[in-house]
Amino acid sequence: MKLANLADVPTTGRVTLPTEVGAEAEARELLVKLGADAVRNSDGTEVPEEFRDMGLKVYGKRFCNRGDNKWANSHPEELSELYLLSRPVTARSSRVEIQLLAGYFTEQVQVDVQHEPAIWWEVRDRTTGAVVPAANWSVEYESDGETPLTAVDCKVVVDGAEPFHEYTAAYLAYDIWDPVQMYNHLTNGWGDKPHEKTFDNFHPATRAHALAALKQWLEDNPKTTVVRFTTFFYQFSLIFNDQAKEKYVDWFGYAMTVSPAAIEAFEAERGYRLTPEDFVDEGYYHTYFRTPTQRWLEWMDFVQRFTADAAKEFTDTAHSLGREAMMFLGDQWAGTEPYGRYFPRIGLDAVVGSVGNGATMRMIADIPAVKYTEGRLLPYFFPDVFRESGDPAGEAIDSWIQARRAMLRNPVDRIGYGGYPSLAAKFPDFVDVAARVTQEFRTLHHFRTSAPDVLGKVAVINAWGSLRTWMPFMVAHALPYRFTEPYFGVIEALSGLPVEVQWLRFGEPIPDDVSAVIIAGTRGTSFSGGQVWDDPGLVAACREWVDAGGFLLGVGEPSFWLKGGRSFQLADVLGVDQEVGFSLSTDRYPSYARSHWVAEDLPKDWAPYDGAKGVYAIEAGAQVVRENDGYVQLAVNEYGNGRAAYAAGLPYDAVNSRLLHRLLLWGTKADSDRPAYLPDNPLIELAHFGEKNLLAAVNNSREAQTARFRDETGTEQELTLAPWAMDWFEL
Amino acid sequence: MKLANLADVPTTGRVTLPTEVGAEAEARELLVKLGADAVRNSDGTEVPEEFRDMGLKVYGKRFCNRGDNKWANSHPEELSELYLLSRPVTARSSRVEIQLLAGYFTEQVQVDVQHEPAIWWEVRDRTTGAVVPAANWSVEYESDGETPLTAVDCKVVVDGAEPFHEYTAAYLAYDIWDPVQMYNHLTNGWGDKPHEKTFDNFHPATRAHALAALKQWLEDNPKTTVVRFTTFFYQFSLIFNDQAKEKYVDWFGYAMTVSPAAIEAFEAERGYRLTPEDFVDEGYYHTYFRTPTQRWLEWMDFVQRFTADAAKEFTDTAHSLGREAMMFLGDQWAGTEPYGRYFPRIGLDAVVGSVGNGATMRMIADIPAVKYTEGRLLPYFFPDVFRESGDPAGEAIDSWIQARRAMLRNPVDRIGYGGYPSLAAKFPDFVDVAARVTQEFRTLHHFRTSAPDVLGKVAVINAWGSLRTWMPFMVAHALPYRFTEPYFGVIEALSGLPVEVQWLRFGEPIPDDVSAVIIAGTRGTSFSGGQVWDDPGLVAACREWVDAGGFLLGVGEPSFWLKGGRSFQLADVLGVDQEVGFSLSTDRYPSYARSHWVAEDLPKDWAPYDGAKGVYAIEAGAQVVRENDGYVQLAVNEYGNGRAAYAAGLPYDAVNSRLLHRLLLWGTKADSDRPAYLPDNPLIELAHFGEKNLLAAVNNSREAQTARFRDETGTEQELTLAPWAMDWFEL
Repeated sequence: MKLANLADVPTTGRVTLPTEVGAEAEARELLVKLGADAVRNSDGTEVPEEFRDMGLKVYGKRFCNRGDNKWANSHPEELSELYLLSRPVTARSSRVEIQLLAGYFTEQVQVDVQHEPAIWWEVRDRTTGAVVPAANWSVEYESDGETPLTAVDCKVVVDGAEPFHEYTAAYLAYDIWDPVQMYNHLTNGWGDKPHEKTFDNFHPATRAHALAALKQWLEDNPKTTVVRFTTFFYQFSLIFNDQAKEKYVDWFGYAMTVSPAAIEAFEAERGYRLTPEDFVDEGYYHTYFRTPTQRWLEWMDFVQRFTADAAKEFTDTAHSLGREAMMFLGDQWAGTEPYGRYFPRIGLDAVVGSVGNGATMRMIADIPAVKYTEGRLLPYFFPDVFRESGDPAGEAIDSWIQARRAMLRNPVDRIGYGGYPSLAAKFPDFVDVAARVTQEFRTLHHFRTSAPDVLGKVAVINAWGSLRTWMPFMVAHALPYRFTEPYFGVIEALSGLPVEVQWLRFGEPIPDDVSAVIIAGTRGTSFSGGQVWDDPGLVAACREWVDAGGFLLGVGEPSFWLKGGRSFQLADVLGVDQEVGFSLSTDRYPSYARSHWVAEDLPKDWAPYDGAKGVYAIEAGAQVVRENDGYVQLAVNEYGNGRAAYAAGLPYDAVNSRLLHRLLLWGTKADSDRPAYLPDNPLIELAHFGEKNLLAAVNNSREAQTARFRDETGTEQELTLAPWAMDWFEL
Repeated sequence: MKLANLADVPTTGRVTLPTEVGAEAEARELLVKLGADAVRNSDGTEVPEEFRDMGLKVYGKRFCNRGDNKWANSHPEELSELYLLSRPVTARSSRVEIQLLAGYFTEQVQVDVQHEPAIWWEVRDRTTGAVVPAANWSVEYESDGETPLTAVDCKVVVDGAEPFHEYTAAYLAYDIWDPVQMYNHLTNGWGDKPHEKTFDNFHPATRAHALAALKQWLEDNPKTTVVRFTTFFYQFSLIFNDQAKEKYVDWFGYAMTVSPAAIEAFEAERGYRLTPEDFVDEGYYHTYFRTPTQRWLEWMDFVQRFTADAAKEFTDTAHSLGREAMMFLGDQWAGTEPYGRYFPRIGLDAVVGSVGNGATMRMIADIPAVKYTEGRLLPYFFPDVFRESGDPAGEAIDSWIQARRAMLRNPVDRIGYGGYPSLAAKFPDFVDVAARVTQEFRTLHHFRTSAPDVLGKVAVINAWGSLRTWMPFMVAHALPYRFTEPYFGVIEALSGLPVEVQWLRFGEPIPDDVSAVIIAGTRGTSFSGGQVWDDPGLVAACREWVDAGGFLLGVGEPSFWLKGGRSFQLADVLGVDQEVGFSLSTDRYPSYARSHWVAEDLPKDWAPYDGAKGVYAIEAGAQVVRENDGYVQLAVNEYGNGRAAYAAGLPYDAVNSRLLHRLLLWGTKADSDRPAYLPDNPLIELAHFGEKNLLAAVNNSREAQTARFRDETGTEQELTLAPWAMDWFEL
């Protein structure tokens, strides 16, 4: 085993950098140090002329649905819309007044009173769930002078209400300020800079106008070689409150894809009409964590197909003028669904997106049907991090460590940065880190010309399946939430483990080559399953699959559905169940396996942060490997010819990632005494390329690390890696 | 304000002590020191002859359903029975074998195969919930030689099962070893001492025999003046496992009240037949925490009426021979329900029960329709506490402190101890404590000749109402459980606070004199309500009551029922709701009131142990007084003319009890600047007897305490109390 020869690794290419008029010198120096071959502009900056003639790729960002208030103002009926749900109002008498915009930001949204409320709105008694007939309510409003189609002060008045029932109104509203521009505007204090309105390309006139504008822009910018669309038509759900602060954000949401025209087109096509409730969903707006209804899935499908077909007109325009079409994975990406069935139709050359960790890296890298992918690394060259007390170099190392282990599995083709080079130049330690990162990235591509060896194929099962590949448990992009961190850790760990990952919906057949399945999440959500577990067919199929030799890993509250005396419908498989307060009268005498093989790398006091509470081993059930305060944190079970394991939570860190690695080995009966290429130090991970006799080793820490491991001949090897190093070895 | 004159306080009376043959001298000394006027026997001891002629009351314990194996063995078909649910068995093929006694203790229970299984048993597919027709299963067993009516090795064989569905069998079993004797037998290692069988007095022959035996016993023991029944007919639910350890215990359970004869009598009376599922309840056996079904409530009613009427035959027998009839609140007390409608029919003179804290004290003291009540104080004179490393004096002080504050509200009429005086005599510090306790108790009765002043009336609302007065949240008697401690603390605090307490079922009208209601508990349970909150009528009535000026205190997960976008159906009243994972996309900006009046006695870092997680203030909702890790621990809200407050949990301690006191004052708008008789030190509590110008002050700690408070004239007073002292003052 010797270090691979680095002499042939290219020192330029695969890197995109931002440039900035007025900071040309700093940008030039960065270009050289990082070996960049492409330049881009950022918010509020332009690519300086000199960089347009250096043979580099030149990216230019392009909005399809905003940045043209002249059009927006002259076509107010083609602005983007959404359904909003009012605050619930408790009736004190038979008359209830519902102030529609209470709690909303009237600079962002205005009530659409043009489309007949009696047809397009819905008032509900939330205490009974019943719809209030339109004859029993009316709308009162004052229109503002400027936009006669909308109303700023508008209420629904219900007559004949049941006292002390709660009432809501779901109504159409226009989105009169693009949410991303609004966010930037408010965050950066842009003062009286005009608010950009968003228009809806579902309307043919608007779409024709946007296409013509794109064409004109391409002609005006002949040296822009790559059109970077930001993104296409529909903003991910982002709604502000009456204090001009974020009120609702769902990076996966379709709340802002609505228009009466689209609802009517949907009805004409599918034979039924969606109601306001289909969109507002009791106020949850079909958050990612709700198990989607069939109607909602059909709406999503409808939006996706429209988006793909219409976006193709834009990419075709770019192609017709000899440019590449690149999509930014963000902003108006609702409906694009890179893993959906219509995505290939868009005809994109590339996708670029922000990379904060392993899962977001794989989310971009694994996208099918594009020529290349690009990851925008953290941190952006923005003043929030590039300031005196900031640590941009440290942040860059931490996020690189998390993304890099996933790149060994499947890398993006390019990386890049965003922001202002003038800021980066003030932090030479950051520039050194970035230079090392970019060269490591080229080294990785130099040696990694095919996929490394894997243990096998693991399926993650939830309500979304492959549509949301690498995306589970994200509330906003790459931001972990306390409720989801114990489960997101599973996805993050998988992104860099030596396994193939398959994404399945509940009820989809498990392919023959899958040897392990994972079900993780909080009870009742789309991830743990909720009501799907009321289906005996699904329950029996899961049991049968494990019984026949499969491995089921449950994390959190998998298969939670109170029925037949069980909290977890797969309690017999997992060997554990959850106390909800009904069996406090039952004494429990679990059996323990505290030094189980799966736990060999765990500290004695290991316990995951948060995760499920009240889980216990059932009679004659699982062996408890770790418990906390009397409840199971980790347990293993034998089930027929198969195995199962349970963890209350697995937030991402090196120890938990190693635990998952060991669980997958044990569960698939690959728990030999010392499996090959499993280092004894969880901070070091290996990627083995058997066919090429290559081994990549990464140190996932900022200190030097040593590890011993066995190679495939059984010979013990030892290696020491410098802080956060990646070394390549020939075997 | 001066100390009351103690000269007239009697120094004897109101105290019962155990005696013991062979320890007469120690018992005599105790009798004198504690001023006892009654003696009793304990398990395995008898009252020595000399104490029977001293003019003392002499208690003799009496079992009604055990201690007569000759009868039991000659009438095996009249033994006590219960329904058991087998362990679930997952079908691997169309044939499933269910070992009925797997996991049960065959020395306690045996399968009843005398009553036709096809009629009396039920096999279920728990994966679908469906009943398997009796034609599809059969019973295989070997009978043991000695008891031909029961089977020790017995299985149900199901044919035509759905593979990978789970199956259970619910079957009748005989209870062949009295659970309490079994517990004592196993705990104390009684070796080959015979196992006492329990017979069921529902059978007329058995009852006639038991009555005759009682009469004989009374004639044989003419100096026993008080018959202490232990208790009557049906053991609280207590089932052991195959390791001879406790498997299931529910002090409030009716699992062991079953017999085919009673089921048939119930059917004849009510017109419908209960099924095995009505008893096994998916394996939860209608634990106290399950919202009871109407069928189950009717069964409980049926058992209660039978118990009262039959028990009257026993008390009549005692009375006819000139003895008092006293009931021990424990062991076979299922069906007696001291707060039930039939209890007065029993005709008891007294009830005695164990007192571990304030709630259990009130549970006994408040029992209606008896001449007197008696509390058996902790610790028992048993070797578990009365040993070298034990601290019986300390334990006695702690439980006395908790019980005493409740006695100021309503005391038991007598107190006493249990166990072996020979043990107590070895701990002179304990004897000193007991002497002080008994004299304090007599002092309390001397001055407290009527009820102290109260703030008003508080209703605790749950599925059980007054039937379970002072009993909520107990899994076994006076044993707090981790799941319930955050809620039981409310009951314990109330037991000593200056309020009257009313116990209501959900849906019962709230009486006019109730100014505050409390709903506390874990979601889905009988205490927080579960499915009752699907009823719009109940929800609207609660809202209306608060709106009109009432005060609602919610603790834990009150009114939890996912519907209409709410987790708590009373979220609008409480001003808080609970995150279950569906609204992670919603940003929250609560308003805070960290120095609110209710929190004036709280430490800065106050947070209750456990309790509900994920609670947040709704938009325009409650003011957050305390939060922990981003979630509400304490919040207050205004609602119409009323008020509401929310606490995630309130485990019992002096600070939380004071918090509850302040919440009740604030909620009922009695939050003046400095209310009268509210000391500034939570460890001191006052009971004010306005009519008599008396004030009782207790120090609820083992250190000296000082407090200032305002009397009703507004004058500030200060007092200092010795460690755990109770002082009486004339105003």
